[in-house]
Amino acid sequence: MGVDIIECGWPSINTKDFEVFRKLKEYSLESKIAAFTSTRRKDLRVDKDPVIVNTLKVEPDVVVVFGKSWILHVREVLRLNPEDNVKIIIDTIQFFKDHGIEVIFDAEHFFDGFKDDKEYALRILKEVENIGVRTIVLCDTNGGMLPHEVYSIVNEVIKNVDTMIGVHMHNDSGNAVANTLMAVLAGARHVQVTINGIGERCGNADFCQVIPNLVFKLGFKVLKGRIDKLRKLTYISKLIYEITGISKNPYQPYVGEYAFTHKAGIHIDAVLKCPRAYEHINPELVGNTRQFTISELSGRSALIAKLSELGIKIIKNDQRLINALNELKELELRGYNFDVGFASGVLIILKELGYYCKYFDVIDWRVVSEGSENYSKAWSWIKIKANEIEILEAGEGVGPVHAADEAIRKALSKIYPEINNVKLIDYKVTLLGIPKHTASTVRVEVTFTDGKHIWTTTASSTNIIEASIKAIIDGIDYYLQIKNLLK
Amino acid sequence: MGVDIIECGWPSINTKDFEVFRKLKEYSLESKIAAFTSTRRKDLRVDKDPVIVNTLKVEPDVVVVFGKSWILHVREVLRLNPEDNVKIIIDTIQFFKDHGIEVIFDAEHFFDGFKDDKEYALRILKEVENIGVRTIVLCDTNGGMLPHEVYSIVNEVIKNVDTMIGVHMHNDSGNAVANTLMAVLAGARHVQVTINGIGERCGNADFCQVIPNLVFKLGFKVLKGRIDKLRKLTYISKLIYEITGISKNPYQPYVGEYAFTHKAGIHIDAVLKCPRAYEHINPELVGNTRQFTISELSGRSALIAKLSELGIKIIKNDQRLINALNELKELELRGYNFDVGFASGVLIILKELGYYCKYFDVIDWRVVSEGSENYSKAWSWIKIKANEIEILEAGEGVGPVHAADEAIRKALSKIYPEINNVKLIDYKVTLLGIPKHTASTVRVEVTFTDGKHIWTTTASSTNIIEASIKAIIDGIDYYLQIKNLLK
Repeated sequence: MGVDIIECGWPSINTKDFEVFRKLKEYSLESKIAAFTSTRRKDLRVDKDPVIVNTLKVEPDVVVVFGKSWILHVREVLRLNPEDNVKIIIDTIQFFKDHGIEVIFDAEHFFDGFKDDKEYALRILKEVENIGVRTIVLCDTNGGMLPHEVYSIVNEVIKNVDTMIGVHMHNDSGNAVANTLMAVLAGARHVQVTINGIGERCGNADFCQVIPNLVFKLGFKVLKGRIDKLRKLTYISKLIYEITGISKNPYQPYVGEYAFTHKAGIHIDAVLKCPRAYEHINPELVGNTRQFTISELSGRSALIAKLSELGIKIIKNDQRLINALNELKELELRGYNFDVGFASGVLIILKELGYYCKYFDVIDWRVVSEGSENYSKAWSWIKIKANEIEILEAGEGVGPVHAADEAIRKALSKIYPEINNVKLIDYKVTLLGIPKHTASTVRVEVTFTDGKHIWTTTASSTNIIEASIKAIIDGIDYYLQIKNLLK
Repeated sequence: MGVDIIECGWPSINTKDFEVFRKLKEYSLESKIAAFTSTRRKDLRVDKDPVIVNTLKVEPDVVVVFGKSWILHVREVLRLNPEDNVKIIIDTIQFFKDHGIEVIFDAEHFFDGFKDDKEYALRILKEVENIGVRTIVLCDTNGGMLPHEVYSIVNEVIKNVDTMIGVHMHNDSGNAVANTLMAVLAGARHVQVTINGIGERCGNADFCQVIPNLVFKLGFKVLKGRIDKLRKLTYISKLIYEITGISKNPYQPYVGEYAFTHKAGIHIDAVLKCPRAYEHINPELVGNTRQFTISELSGRSALIAKLSELGIKIIKNDQRLINALNELKELELRGYNFDVGFASGVLIILKELGYYCKYFDVIDWRVVSEGSENYSKAWSWIKIKANEIEILEAGEGVGPVHAADEAIRKALSKIYPEINNVKLIDYKVTLLGIPKHTASTVRVEVTFTDGKHIWTTTASSTNIIEASIKAIIDGIDYYLQIKNLLK
């Protein structure tokens, strides 16, 4: 993405992080690679402290040393006298400088420290400035600061310190993004962010929010290379969620699934006339897309826009359209959510409008899972009827949904071989309402692609297998319907 | 919670919202109830417009009228001349005033309007002030504003308008909370927020973040009654997620599951010495709780603290403790997440330390689901061995996990009747890593309670039934282990 520095963890105490640095040597990166480390232990010489010495083993371009600038931490946590704290910071920075490595100093808890004992907090920065580092980073480690405080404190620091100032903001007051921006407005020129804001407690300032705000709203050039790199932002965000197994936040600014999704009917009406009416930026700038949902709140304009993409022209006062909308509203009252599973909504609308073509019926299905301590398996049967022929097929899989999916595809591809183009790319289960034991209703959402388009279906049931089968069948049915409509 | 006004939707166009107002008449509330409505249609007299007239039917205490203050919307969306826009706003407000109802005016898109055509935006406010309303609300409807702009614009409005100023912030730039706070600092005295920030696109400013910031950090008295009402905040947040079926955001400031959860070993060490070291407020103030996770990043102090709650005293250098920590780190490398499913982590640790007592073995299980278009059912068998006795039990349920849960409980409660106290209160499935078709690995997390304590277990498998059974068994096993340890 063209960032200056990628901080890759704390290699001297974490074997996984150590492994990351080793692996990174195989790549040629345009960014510098930084290793995080504490200061030396109070009872060891810096060149005898394994945490410090082992940091050299990964050959980082930059070392980020964190030290305490809050007198409370010095006294109560480290249990050091304030002078010894200064000394361990200076020793540690000097050690890395002597080895020819650039140093960034993270002044942990700086904001709390500044409010508690300003003189001591500023003294730490001065001592670090005297020895010389690339950047001094003011950290809101507890994340409790508010934007106006950050602005005024950074402003005051900048008057006292000549070294480049950076900030590292946590989100405990809900202001990590705002605090980062206010610090930049006050003169900070280095920001520490994580993709999707992943981090301790409420997380850190989010790369995916801070960077587009700095670039598109404040006009800063923060990434090397061309500004259109930010078109990869939505992709990068999703990739990190998938790799880490952390659930996506659909409401995430800029890159979330709903960030440019319009639900209210009057919003959709307006956006169709003029996107700027309800969009703070063009979603393409960050690689996201405008979407209209089909839901209880959306009006006829949303439906008309959706249908016209499928080649169906219909006027606003067509009674069938009004009926379709009422049916969707009715189903949403019963727990369906067509905001996400819009493809299932489209199937209902096509039926109401008379554009639906019946390709197959599902007659019966059965799925068996079994296991003992060290093994488990699953298989399934499905009977479908298409073109007056009944087809019974079996599938096996690593789990019950996989087994059912296999049987469904085997059966349907006998008659409709084109469905082999359809791949499942996401599968999500949500518990609905207040959980009532394992008998709760679940909503399943399944996302498909044929390589060109992406669509999501939804189904609800107390039986997760039933809901999954319905959603998979809807996804294949939708593909066949759309292919027919657009041919 | 002691809020002044609860806005309950747009009853004249939405039947569900209409129903809410009808139901609310059955309750005696300390808050005023407000109905949302547009201005009259440009081609109708205000007393002939059903959207306006039907608003009276729900007998609201307050009506919130939204109107346009951005010339772009007036011209491009409403396609009105600027004078007619003023007239429909004034007509609508006058209509409600004539019916003795208090009016709040939401100046939609005010901030964009102010930046685009300041004179027209301010003129709308002046006209509304002249006719007289309770509050004029400046809306960042597109959510794209940054905190410093909000501060300066609200500041300028306050110099020109004497009516109470409010704000309504969306989160598209990630600054809804910050923008609301900056507006209050600039003189706004009414804030529009939604619980958990639920709202269009990236959502609105979050009640659960704005209110504690205003109360605990800025010293405002914003809720009627005692400040300790905010101890219900975490409960209220969870309740709204459960009722709406929207997934909880564990990173949510103040009320999220991770908001006061410490993961890094050095953070845990410090918090044990002095909570203020890594907590911006006391979690009890908002009804949340401090938690330590057992994970690859947590050190021995976290384990020692956890174990001491269970009555197990162990020293930091005990080799068994080091082994247990390494085993957990190892499993986390393979995708386990003990941050959430800490009870499953505790079982592993108890085994390592020699404190684990074997209560039962699961020998075999089988689950069958079947259905056709209009029905589905599920049943299960399970064979367990406890006290040298093999017990085979069957269960049926509305879904496969329910059926399995029934069989497990029937079998185990024959020998351990105390497990009838254990209730399942949450069940969550997450897809891990990059989805590979329906064969992907899932992580199941199950939360239990015995009425006094709450614990969560976790298991991963490509087979959702297997993972669910493992997590349920772990939950019951944990209960038996803890009961034994604490007796």
